[in-house]
Amino acid sequence: MYTYIHNEIVPAEKAFLHVRDLSIQRGYGVFDFFKIKDGHPYFLNDYLERFYHSAKVMHLSVPQPPDALKSIICQLIEKNNIAESGIKIILTGGYSEDGYLPSDPNLIITQHSLILPSEEVVNKGVKIITQDYVRDLPTAKTINYSMGIWLAKKIKEELAYDVLYHQNNVVSEFPRCNFFIVRKDDTVVTPIDRVLNGITRKNILKLAANKYNAEEGIITLDDIYHAKEAFLTSTTKRIVPIVEINDTFINNGKPGPISLSLLAGLKALEQQDVRLNKQ
Amino acid sequence: MYTYIHNEIVPAEKAFLHVRDLSIQRGYGVFDFFKIKDGHPYFLNDYLERFYHSAKVMHLSVPQPPDALKSIICQLIEKNNIAESGIKIILTGGYSEDGYLPSDPNLIITQHSLILPSEEVVNKGVKIITQDYVRDLPTAKTINYSMGIWLAKKIKEELAYDVLYHQNNVVSEFPRCNFFIVRKDDTVVTPIDRVLNGITRKNILKLAANKYNAEEGIITLDDIYHAKEAFLTSTTKRIVPIVEINDTFINNGKPGPISLSLLAGLKALEQQDVRLNKQ
Repeated sequence: MYTYIHNEIVPAEKAFLHVRDLSIQRGYGVFDFFKIKDGHPYFLNDYLERFYHSAKVMHLSVPQPPDALKSIICQLIEKNNIAESGIKIILTGGYSEDGYLPSDPNLIITQHSLILPSEEVVNKGVKIITQDYVRDLPTAKTINYSMGIWLAKKIKEELAYDVLYHQNNVVSEFPRCNFFIVRKDDTVVTPIDRVLNGITRKNILKLAANKYNAEEGIITLDDIYHAKEAFLTSTTKRIVPIVEINDTFINNGKPGPISLSLLAGLKALEQQDVRLNKQ
Repeated sequence: MYTYIHNEIVPAEKAFLHVRDLSIQRGYGVFDFFKIKDGHPYFLNDYLERFYHSAKVMHLSVPQPPDALKSIICQLIEKNNIAESGIKIILTGGYSEDGYLPSDPNLIITQHSLILPSEEVVNKGVKIITQDYVRDLPTAKTINYSMGIWLAKKIKEELAYDVLYHQNNVVSEFPRCNFFIVRKDDTVVTPIDRVLNGITRKNILKLAANKYNAEEGIITLDDIYHAKEAFLTSTTKRIVPIVEINDTFINNGKPGPISLSLLAGLKALEQQDVRLNKQ
């Protein structure tokens, strides 16, 4: 496996950053992550657009323009030659002079095998717990996961799959996933505020709008207890049905038909993205 | 200059972490920082106690017990042999298997020259601005400075020295410093909640209690506008008088006598710490 770092492609085991880097000194950096199948990166333009947005929000400047970055990504994909995988692009605050203020950012691109959710998880649905918290600067995909990782212990103790953030009962997102509910009237809703603009979230909103009412809106904890269905979305996980929240079942405690139909729609949309880019 | 990393002391320019480290992947880690003069680390036990506390809060385990860690620190100080400097100990989430959950932590110890506040800053005092924010898990000294560094641009634009966090008008701390006011009745107060337990903060509380009333309490933004004096404290900065907040002068807009007397007391306490440890 190979990694891009310090402006060159090197064997992954040789990808090191000096400890002066601001990610190590101050946890300062942004990143993005997308899936690859048979050499094709799904929805690449969307992911790159978000990556540049995150960098801008955090006052970091990506060293390459999008076309040059795409070309590096393509070289890496070709060199690694793995059928199904994920690519992570990290942009750190760079080798800071004073250990605090960002310098010229370091760009790192790594490729990984993917761990997809099991069939059981999708068929049975999962339990989630909740936590009062809002990410700093939520529209930026920063590398700061202090709270998310700190909560991993609680998730394990509660035998839950993930933890949903809320503030004053208004829910926002999971540490690494977006959140949706289906209301009693079949409206598909995802939180409008204080969330990362997930690419899967965007695709699901588009797919849902074809068949149902779909909107970005305010979702309270109480709305979830009265929802018909609930699910989470992410690049790796696609859609995972949520059937239990803080020990209370949602509806009949089973994955709902709208969640599963949107998952089928998403898989079809991925295929369409491959076809469009082959033409 | 030398650095301790991967269980050995190496030339500082060779101190690298593999990009799999959780500080680079997820900004996950804790650290601490203390001053050295002529081979003597000031208040070392206090700093180490806090370092182990931070690690525990973040579910990380320091590979060495305190005595072994002290011995490494002493070896590094001896090898580097710099009269006046600072030592930073970083404990990261380690080389994570899945890029999310902590593994065996990586311990890094670096030594740096110190940039002390100028005489002008101490004699004239500084302006601060304010920001609605509370650090995640404030009693842990994590490496997460996303918000603090993000605000550096605003600090510069407002020609300020630092930014004070508050929530619903109750103030807590600066990104890297603690905060104190002197009330009209000469009570020296520092925020009781949502703060890092600074070692300088602790020392100032002790010194202040000898001469004045000193307490940990609730300080609102309004309290600051009506304070007699205000100042910030940190390991590197000791005490810096604050004379202006959001374009409003505090009292007469000059450093106050109690702030300056506590600064003199702190310098004397540092000398005492050297003497006690020489015996």
